[in-house]
Amino acid sequence: MNEQTYTLSQLADYLGAEARGEAHTVVRGIAPLDSAQPEQISFLDNPKFRRYLAGTRASIVLLGAQDVAHCPTAALIVKNPYYAYAKVAELFQVTPNYACGVHATAVLGPGCEIHPSAHVGAYVVMGAGVSVAAHAVIEAGCILGDRVQVGEHTRLYAHVTVYSGVRLGQRVIVHSGAVLGSDGFGIAKHQGHWHKVPQLGGLSVGDDAEIGANTSVDRGALQDTVLEHDVRLDNQVQIGHNVRVGAHTAVAGCVGIAGSTTIGEHCLLGGGVGVAGHLHIADQVAVTGFSGVTKSITQAGVYSGMPAQRDVVWKHNMVRLRQLEKMADKIKLLEQQVAALLAEKV
Amino acid sequence: MNEQTYTLSQLADYLGAEARGEAHTVVRGIAPLDSAQPEQISFLDNPKFRRYLAGTRASIVLLGAQDVAHCPTAALIVKNPYYAYAKVAELFQVTPNYACGVHATAVLGPGCEIHPSAHVGAYVVMGAGVSVAAHAVIEAGCILGDRVQVGEHTRLYAHVTVYSGVRLGQRVIVHSGAVLGSDGFGIAKHQGHWHKVPQLGGLSVGDDAEIGANTSVDRGALQDTVLEHDVRLDNQVQIGHNVRVGAHTAVAGCVGIAGSTTIGEHCLLGGGVGVAGHLHIADQVAVTGFSGVTKSITQAGVYSGMPAQRDVVWKHNMVRLRQLEKMADKIKLLEQQVAALLAEKV
Amino acid sequence: MNEQTYTLSQLADYLGAEARGEAHTVVRGIAPLDSAQPEQISFLDNPKFRRYLAGTRASIVLLGAQDVAHCPTAALIVKNPYYAYAKVAELFQVTPNYACGVHATAVLGPGCEIHPSAHVGAYVVMGAGVSVAAHAVIEAGCILGDRVQVGEHTRLYAHVTVYSGVRLGQRVIVHSGAVLGSDGFGIAKHQGHWHKVPQLGGLSVGDDAEIGANTSVDRGALQDTVLEHDVRLDNQVQIGHNVRVGAHTAVAGCVGIAGSTTIGEHCLLGGGVGVAGHLHIADQVAVTGFSGVTKSITQAGVYSGMPAQRDVVWKHNMVRLRQLEKMADKIKLLEQQVAALLAEKV
Repeated sequence: MNEQTYTLSQLADYLGAEARGEAHTVVRGIAPLDSAQPEQISFLDNPKFRRYLAGTRASIVLLGAQDVAHCPTAALIVKNPYYAYAKVAELFQVTPNYACGVHATAVLGPGCEIHPSAHVGAYVVMGAGVSVAAHAVIEAGCILGDRVQVGEHTRLYAHVTVYSGVRLGQRVIVHSGAVLGSDGFGIAKHQGHWHKVPQLGGLSVGDDAEIGANTSVDRGALQDTVLEHDVRLDNQVQIGHNVRVGAHTAVAGCVGIAGSTTIGEHCLLGGGVGVAGHLHIADQVAVTGFSGVTKSITQAGVYSGMPAQRDVVWKHNMVRLRQLEKMADKIKLLEQQVAALLAEKV
Repeated sequence: MNEQTYTLSQLADYLGAEARGEAHTVVRGIAPLDSAQPEQISFLDNPKFRRYLAGTRASIVLLGAQDVAHCPTAALIVKNPYYAYAKVAELFQVTPNYACGVHATAVLGPGCEIHPSAHVGAYVVMGAGVSVAAHAVIEAGCILGDRVQVGEHTRLYAHVTVYSGVRLGQRVIVHSGAVLGSDGFGIAKHQGHWHKVPQLGGLSVGDDAEIGANTSVDRGALQDTVLEHDVRLDNQVQIGHNVRVGAHTAVAGCVGIAGSTTIGEHCLLGGGVGVAGHLHIADQVAVTGFSGVTKSITQAGVYSGMPAQRDVVWKHNMVRLRQLEKMADKIKLLEQQVAALLAEKV
Repeated sequence: MNEQTYTLSQLADYLGAEARGEAHTVVRGIAPLDSAQPEQISFLDNPKFRRYLAGTRASIVLLGAQDVAHCPTAALIVKNPYYAYAKVAELFQVTPNYACGVHATAVLGPGCEIHPSAHVGAYVVMGAGVSVAAHAVIEAGCILGDRVQVGEHTRLYAHVTVYSGVRLGQRVIVHSGAVLGSDGFGIAKHQGHWHKVPQLGGLSVGDDAEIGANTSVDRGALQDTVLEHDVRLDNQVQIGHNVRVGAHTAVAGCVGIAGSTTIGEHCLLGGGVGVAGHLHIADQVAVTGFSGVTKSITQAGVYSGMPAQRDVVWKHNMVRLRQLEKMADKIKLLEQQVAALLAEKV
């Protein structure tokens, strides 16, 4: 964290928030509600943590109007405390200082166009005809194939690999170890031997997307794989060829999406979810963690289980499963009673 | 894609296919049936896409004899349209031009033998005694440990890591971020503390294998981990130590195979499948996506579920599960009826 | 393997083991029981392999007292044969020879402190203020951000990425492709658009930890993500932000642990396990492979299934599931019998 300090009134102005408490209350850092110290700001978003509010040592707390009555400290009242926390955290962020220009050790192919305000780090390697727009950052050790396009303010952390022809929009963030535009898994069996299907499509990543560490996104077989704008992928995610992920969709860690599947906009895929190939998932679909989606989903809503189904149905089935033991007992009792009734008849 | 054009008769010759339509019909690209434009060739393999045939704008369609009657355009009749598509896609592939020789920035240990026709890219690092055979390609930023062997025409994309002693056959393709020959997960507990078990074995990868982006394959503990020839691994796959994967087996994305398991030949593991350690999977076994294999499989066939079982059995169980609600209702009705019968007796 | 030879009596001294057989029996290698050759040592730990003992061709076998009567060869009797095997394997390990000093091609930021006994390989890149302690090894192509701390005897294999501020203890091993300290997946939705939550915390890795190939461990949002000492992570593992993994806990391949979860000490997570966020897992908990932990676990023991439950309960449920067919048959029979009884009444 940097050493900046902020007062309650400064932060109220910055956030457009209503302030309660002494306007000159100072904070110089940010911390969780239960571990914050004086001169730190904290936030209350998840109701689970409401129990920490009364005892917090923070100097200021970001919270919703419903919680201000129970706040023992100065407060900033906001509609979305989690978003306000994100905005305040930005104030305490140390922004690394990337020198403009291309490091002397970078190896660039013919015809690369690097904007003078961009940063290209040590041991970066680029093929032919790569374009890097203004204020983009290509950290050390990144490798970009021929004709890769990097938009303005886009940032590749160290050790990102981008295959030829991939297009990255503006303000995209790609974390280390990510591989973008690798060949899709296309193989055709012929006389008992696999034959590789050339992957002629590309990969297009929209503005404001973020791609996590060690995530891989394949290029298309014939057309492009597409991550629309504001798509957010966590770490260790695998996106197959020809997939399209809709705008504002967030994908948690360890998710795999098989080839040619389309995910709608504003979807949420929980950790470890798998989505089979050639499916269509509607907008506004949430799939809870560890679920496996094996059929297309045509309606917004929450889905769970393996195979994934409406969350309420799945929860109901889970309850039934836990009652199997009781069902077996009931059947046994019925068998005894019916046997007795039948015996009487004789 | 490159700008080559091909006529119907040229493609018929190339594929050994029967042609229907004007011999001089020209194509200059390849696209899916529903989005193809005039002067593009397309293909019909998956029956799901048959509905697009009548309306396709493609100039030529690759298809089986059963579909030709409904094809509105020129056609090439083949036994395996998917394989024919792969062959035609090769014609439109841009083959990157790798200069022979070792880039000036590559750092090679003593005793490396690099064939003059091989390509070694910028910032490649090799240990001692590495051998790289004719026409092999080691792209930028690859790191190869001591005594690694790379066969003819084998291609490592950028940022591949190969630990010491690993042997790669001919025509192997390894995608970026893959790690080959890392230590297996061998730990022995002693007095409450883990003790690392040295991993003394190696890793051998057969001819024509393909290994996906960010996939990891561990070296053996005492003997070699083995991928036989024509094994195909997708992205984000994890292969534990001492595993042997049989020839022509294909493994989809996000699969994990635990240590000392043997997979047969011509197997198919769907996306996200897990296979426990110390198992033996027979030849010709297919495991559907998201399944967990916890016991050895001794017979060819299709297996599904967690734990994995014969696919027909699993599907049957899934049906039963969906009927649990009805079973509970039936039990309730029986209880009422039996109670009534018992009450009458009194 | 190196070419060292050892006698039975030397090994007995080294291990503190009781020897049976000719003291001058020589071994020059180590191999599994069923494939060992003369002049190799083997071991019997897993009772599954007891059947190979009578026929082994090994010259010496490491085993427990209960097996010595059936051993046809010289033997070393130990309490923990697997640990003894690890110790003997160390004798046959080829220790790579890392030259002290910083490779001429390494690019170091200002204020880095590299101990003269440390090894820094080709094309390593470090930010400002990095410290590397005595005997540490940073292999080729590693990239370390600002202020990273590397403890004594810690070893980073090739292509490891360490984000700024991460602290690694002593004797830590990190395998290739691992990414340490990447941003956690923190996003806040605001007016339909995701807003990135700055990840201001760090990552601390304790002494003797091992981190597998292509594994990713995120930095904390406000405080540190922590791997305590002797934590062992296999390949392709994902650890979310703010997670704490307790000492001596081992995590198998392809496991994902979501953010803000605490795992106790001496836990074992099997391959492919998922753990949801904001949970607390007690000490001494084992979770079997492919399970999904969705609730906190407050008591030591073995847990299985999705959602994870006590292993005995889960196994019981699995048995019941397999009996669903029979339950349906019983209900059908009861329905017929009751219908007959009811019909008689009329």
